[in-house]
Amino acid sequence: MTLKSLPRKDCFTIPDGLVYLDGNSLGPPLRNSAQYASRVIVEEWGKELIGAWNSAHWMSLPATVGNQIAPLMGVPTGSVATGDTLSIKAYQALAAALSMRPNRRIVLSDSGNFPTDLYIAQGLLDTLDKGHELHTPHPERVLESITDEVAVVYLTHVDYRTGRMHDMKTITEKAHKHGAVTIWDLAHSVGAVPLHLYETCSEFAVGCTYKYLNGGPGSPAFIYVRPDLVGSIEPAIAGWMGHRNPFQMGLKYNPAEGTERFRIGTPSVIQFKLLELAMRIWDDIDIKEVRSASIMLSERFIKKVKQRSPSLRLVSPAQAEERGSHVSFSNENAYSIIQALIDRGLIGDFREPNILRFGIAPLYLDVEDIQRAADIIEHVMNSQMWRDPKYAIKKAVT
Amino acid sequence: MTLKSLPRKDCFTIPDGLVYLDGNSLGPPLRNSAQYASRVIVEEWGKELIGAWNSAHWMSLPATVGNQIAPLMGVPTGSVATGDTLSIKAYQALAAALSMRPNRRIVLSDSGNFPTDLYIAQGLLDTLDKGHELHTPHPERVLESITDEVAVVYLTHVDYRTGRMHDMKTITEKAHKHGAVTIWDLAHSVGAVPLHLYETCSEFAVGCTYKYLNGGPGSPAFIYVRPDLVGSIEPAIAGWMGHRNPFQMGLKYNPAEGTERFRIGTPSVIQFKLLELAMRIWDDIDIKEVRSASIMLSERFIKKVKQRSPSLRLVSPAQAEERGSHVSFSNENAYSIIQALIDRGLIGDFREPNILRFGIAPLYLDVEDIQRAADIIEHVMNSQMWRDPKYAIKKAVT
Repeated sequence: MTLKSLPRKDCFTIPDGLVYLDGNSLGPPLRNSAQYASRVIVEEWGKELIGAWNSAHWMSLPATVGNQIAPLMGVPTGSVATGDTLSIKAYQALAAALSMRPNRRIVLSDSGNFPTDLYIAQGLLDTLDKGHELHTPHPERVLESITDEVAVVYLTHVDYRTGRMHDMKTITEKAHKHGAVTIWDLAHSVGAVPLHLYETCSEFAVGCTYKYLNGGPGSPAFIYVRPDLVGSIEPAIAGWMGHRNPFQMGLKYNPAEGTERFRIGTPSVIQFKLLELAMRIWDDIDIKEVRSASIMLSERFIKKVKQRSPSLRLVSPAQAEERGSHVSFSNENAYSIIQALIDRGLIGDFREPNILRFGIAPLYLDVEDIQRAADIIEHVMNSQMWRDPKYAIKKAVT
Repeated sequence: MTLKSLPRKDCFTIPDGLVYLDGNSLGPPLRNSAQYASRVIVEEWGKELIGAWNSAHWMSLPATVGNQIAPLMGVPTGSVATGDTLSIKAYQALAAALSMRPNRRIVLSDSGNFPTDLYIAQGLLDTLDKGHELHTPHPERVLESITDEVAVVYLTHVDYRTGRMHDMKTITEKAHKHGAVTIWDLAHSVGAVPLHLYETCSEFAVGCTYKYLNGGPGSPAFIYVRPDLVGSIEPAIAGWMGHRNPFQMGLKYNPAEGTERFRIGTPSVIQFKLLELAMRIWDDIDIKEVRSASIMLSERFIKKVKQRSPSLRLVSPAQAEERGSHVSFSNENAYSIIQALIDRGLIGDFREPNILRFGIAPLYLDVEDIQRAADIIEHVMNSQMWRDPKYAIKKAVT
C-alpha cells in the first residue's frame, strides 16, 4: 500500500456527512484558507496598502505560484506563467502556436474538448480572418487526423465528460513528426495524474487551479511554454505585467525574457494567496501517490456502482490507465438522479446530455467515502427517489 | 457646503498616523472586508462547495457588480460586463472597435496613455497583421489628429501621471463627426469624477476597480459597450461565460444577447465579493459630492504645497475642472522625496521620470489629512531628509 500519507482530509473542510465527489469542478477550501485570506486583507492590504506590492511580495506571486505548479506538470522552474482564466491562457497559447506556423491553416481539436477551448479558438480564428479552420473530429479520430496541414493540435488531456485521457506522448510525437505544434489543456489533469510535459516536448500547456489544486472559485489559471521557444514568441495579449520593466512606463512593449511575458494585467492578489496556500499541500506529497490512490478508489467505486446500480452505464474507460481522476456514468435521467444524490449527501455533477460525473480527489477522500457514495447511489436508484418532480427543476449552473 | 455625508473614513481601515494619498493606485479595504471574505470562504465555498454557484449567486456576481458600477459611469443597467483585468477589457474593446471600422487603419491614442493600453494595442495590431498603425501624439494634439482615417480614438480619460483630464464630450463628438469609434479608459476616473458615457454616446469604456472603487489588489475590471451596438459585435475573446447558454456545452459559440457576451472565463469569486462589498458604499453617496470634496481638498493641497515647498512644480492642470482626482508635482529628486515622505507617514507615489503623485480620495480623506500631508512635504523638503542615500534605493514596484 503506497498511501502512507494520504488522505489529507483534516487539512480540508468538508461538511460533516457529505461525500464530495465534485472536486473536479471545484476543490474545497483548506481549513485555514479563510484565516489566511483574512490575514492578507488585514495585515498586508490594510496595513501595508500600496506598499504590499513590495513588502508582501505581491508582484512575484504569479511566479511563486507558477513554480509551485511546475513540478506537477513535470516542467522546469520558471516555465509557468499564472494569472487570468483558462480561456485567456488558451487564447494566448493558440495565438502563439499559430504564429509559429504561419503557413498552415488547420487547428485540430476534438469534439470532446471543453467548450470554452473551442469557443476561444473560434473567436481567435475569426479575428485573425486568415482562413483558418477548426477541426473537431471524434476524440478517437484525433491521431489519424494529424497531417502536414495541421498547424496546431489543441486538445484537452482528460475529457471533462468521460474522463478519457488522451495519450499525450503518442499524439505529441505524431504532431511533431508532421510539424504541428501542441497545446494541452490540463484542467482535469494537473494535481490528478502525473504529467511529463517537458519530457514529451509539448510546446504549450494551459490549465485552471480551482479543480484538483483547490485554489478556490475563480483562482488564477496557468500557461506553460517550452523554455527553448518562449524567447521568440511575441505575446498576442501584450499586457504591462509581461513587460521587461513595467514600471519604466515606456511607450513600446518590450517583453520580459522568459515565460513572464505571458503575464498580462494586475494579478488578483487575494485569489493568488489562496492558491499559494493550497499549493503548499504538495510540498510533501508525491503526485504518483495521489494517482495510485485515485485509481484504487475509482476502481472500487466503479465496481460497486456497476454491481449494485446496473442502470448506470459506465462511460469512462474501463481501464484505469486510460482515465483521468473522474468517473462518469450515463443514464437518461442523469439530471434528476444527480439532484437526488445531492439531496442525500453525495455531491457529483451532471453534464449534458445524460452524464453523471464523480470526481475522485484522494487528498480528501477515503475508502469509507467511496463506500458511502456507492450506498447512496444504490439507495437513490433502488428507491427511485429521483422520480420526485422537484429533482427535475433545472438550476442555472449544473 | 455640500459635504454633508463625507468623508466615510470610519468605513475604512487606514493605519493610525498615516496619510494615504495613493488611493489612485490601490484603495484601502473596508473595515469589514476581511470578515466578509472570511464568511464567503467558510460559509459559501466551504459549506456549499460547487453548489454556491447557484445558492450564493456566484454566477451572477459579474452582472451584479456591473450594475453597481454603471451609475458611476452614467450608463444603463445591464450595459457593463466585469471580470479579468483592464488589459483584457482594453483588448476586447479595441478588437471590437476595429471590427466596426474594417476599412480604416489608424488607432489614435496619445503619448500620455497608460502603457498597458498602448502595449495591448501593439499586441493586437501585430496579431491582426493588417497594417494598422498606432498613433500617439502629445495629449494636447489628440483633437486635431482626429481625421477620416482614424478607426478608433483610444484614450485614457485622466492621465495617470499628470491628472490632466481629456474633454470627453468634445473628443467623442469630433470622433463621431469623422466616423471614428471611441474607447475611454476610466481607470483614474470612475469613482473620482462624474461620468456621462451614455450621454456622450461613447461606444466603449473600460476600467479597473482597485483604485477609487476600493475593490482590492487585482479586483475585476469592467467594460461598457453602448447598448445599441453590443448585439452586432462578435467578441474576439469568446469565452464560455459569454455564451448564451454556457452549460449547454455546445460546440459552437453563440454569444449572450447583451453585454454579458464580454464575459470570458470563470469569475474570480473572492475578488468579486470584495468588490461587491466595496461598491455598496456608493448606495447613498452622490459622485458629484465626491467630486466637490476632491476639488476642495486638491485646491487646498496645491495651494499649501506651492506656498511652502516651491521646489515642487505643479504638473497637473491648475484649473480644477481640467484635473481628475490626483495631483502631481515634478522634481528631479522625485523618487527619493517620495521615499522620504513615506517614511514620515505620507504615502504618495513616484512615476517616471520625475513625478510625485498624490491621490485625493475624499471617501477617506479630510481637511486634516491634507493639512498633515502639506506639513510632511514641507518638512521633508526643508530638512532635505530625502538626501539620505537610503531613499534612493529603487524598489521593484514604484
